[in-house]
Amino acid sequence: MSDVASDQGQLAELAATVADLGARLRAVEDQVAIGQLIARYGPAVDSGSADAAAGLWASDGVFEVPPYAVWTGRGEIAGMVDGAGHQGLIANGCGHVLTAPLVKVDGDEARAWNYALNIRWDAEADRFWTARLSANSWWLRRMPDGWRVTRRVNRALDGSPEPRALFQASTQPFQAGAQPS
Amino acid sequence: MSDVASDQGQLAELAATVADLGARLRAVEDQVAIGQLIARYGPAVDSGSADAAAGLWASDGVFEVPPYAVWTGRGEIAGMVDGAGHQGLIANGCGHVLTAPLVKVDGDEARAWNYALNIRWDAEADRFWTARLSANSWWLRRMPDGWRVTRRVNRALDGSPEPRALFQASTQPFQAGAQPS
Amino acid sequence: MSDVASDQGQLAELAATVADLGARLRAVEDQVAIGQLIARYGPAVDSGSADAAAGLWASDGVFEVPPYAVWTGRGEIAGMVDGAGHQGLIANGCGHVLTAPLVKVDGDEARAWNYALNIRWDAEADRFWTARLSANSWWLRRMPDGWRVTRRVNRALDGSPEPRALFQASTQPFQAGAQPS
Repeated sequence: MSDVASDQGQLAELAATVADLGARLRAVEDQVAIGQLIARYGPAVDSGSADAAAGLWASDGVFEVPPYAVWTGRGEIAGMVDGAGHQGLIANGCGHVLTAPLVKVDGDEARAWNYALNIRWDAEADRFWTARLSANSWWLRRMPDGWRVTRRVNRALDGSPEPRALFQASTQPFQAGAQPS
Repeated sequence: MSDVASDQGQLAELAATVADLGARLRAVEDQVAIGQLIARYGPAVDSGSADAAAGLWASDGVFEVPPYAVWTGRGEIAGMVDGAGHQGLIANGCGHVLTAPLVKVDGDEARAWNYALNIRWDAEADRFWTARLSANSWWLRRMPDGWRVTRRVNRALDGSPEPRALFQASTQPFQAGAQPS
Repeated sequence: MSDVASDQGQLAELAATVADLGARLRAVEDQVAIGQLIARYGPAVDSGSADAAAGLWASDGVFEVPPYAVWTGRGEIAGMVDGAGHQGLIANGCGHVLTAPLVKVDGDEARAWNYALNIRWDAEADRFWTARLSANSWWLRRMPDGWRVTRRVNRALDGSPEPRALFQASTQPFQAGAQPS
């Protein structure tokens, strides 16, 4: 074999290795990007940054907190942050503390699951208390400018079966386009 | 130097760069994979998914919660999830909230450390309360199908020295095969 | 075109792809490294490992907990861990539970934001309680031996505007060298 032929074989092999690295790197980038997207929620809402919070969702994204509320689209999500209820919470002292999510990606779609704590300041008792602990299920989509939330469901872990069903889905393989649950 | 010789030098250099990227990428993949493995625990046990929870461990893995219990092997860990104690907790409203772990990898062995909160619903008081905050120490092994837990020790942070000793180990370098602590 | 010329074109293209992968990998490594640095804080202080905790900061790093304290440099931070106040907390049962941070990197500088919970054991009530929930803002710098904290500000989420201002900065783009806030 000539040197040139040998070079071309090595070059093709190296190009295949590089393509494989690129795919693996993209999988890790997706994990980090989705973890970071979700990490932006708490600091945004607890600082009253309505547009930043709403911007985590796709323009037609949905945020469901059954049985209390469903907000559809960035305008409604920003309206929740700007609303009297949320403003009262943060004026009194409050943290929306989310845990690092479990994330499953399939192409340009992803699912994630984590916990959210709604913790509030009680000046009289001189301590914080936990108003709500919820199971959270996230649906995400890769957009031209990065991952965005298309749907988030938040259900209190109060012993009812619905939050358990949300979390049960996290134990199953995720396939884009399959029926959401 | 001929063009061919020059090409071969550049090719060898590029191959070395690619090999280095591959090793660095694997280190990041291990961090993400172990973080994700641990992120699966809470949603699995809080949805009563016994097999999914047990499947995080190696087949002969151990879960120790001194002084209450030691579960050895996937059967016993699944049995804990299916047991009356755990089923009573989730029927009443409960979350096993784990933090993102500190992870140290050496080859095919790893260690991790994090916090776990056992938070429970109190319908009468209309709030959640924290039954347990524990120091958790994890031993992990790379298996053909991914990382698995070989041992997890969970100790309440109740002022006793044992949980502090678990966490002290996180400040030391980790070397596979060294005496576990 | 000769085979050699064709090879050189392919080699140059592959080298550019590899350089791009290297830059993307470094961005992911920075995210993981800063997340891991911050994950070391809780286990270090809750095990009374003063030097390990102080070593997360740059030698002249600052830890501010307004209005209670400002510790400047590793000696003062280690002194806080060794001090009677902190030693009393961990002897009584305590966890400094930090969430996975939002991280923004620009070159050799970075910012991060997360929550910290100070949770304490109450043996009489047989439960844990949350003494403090704080907004945390971190300034970090890439050093020859890795990322270190140059400044951390911790403010209780008690309804005052200062912690909200800390978190508001997390919604803005981060540019190294710009005025810290």
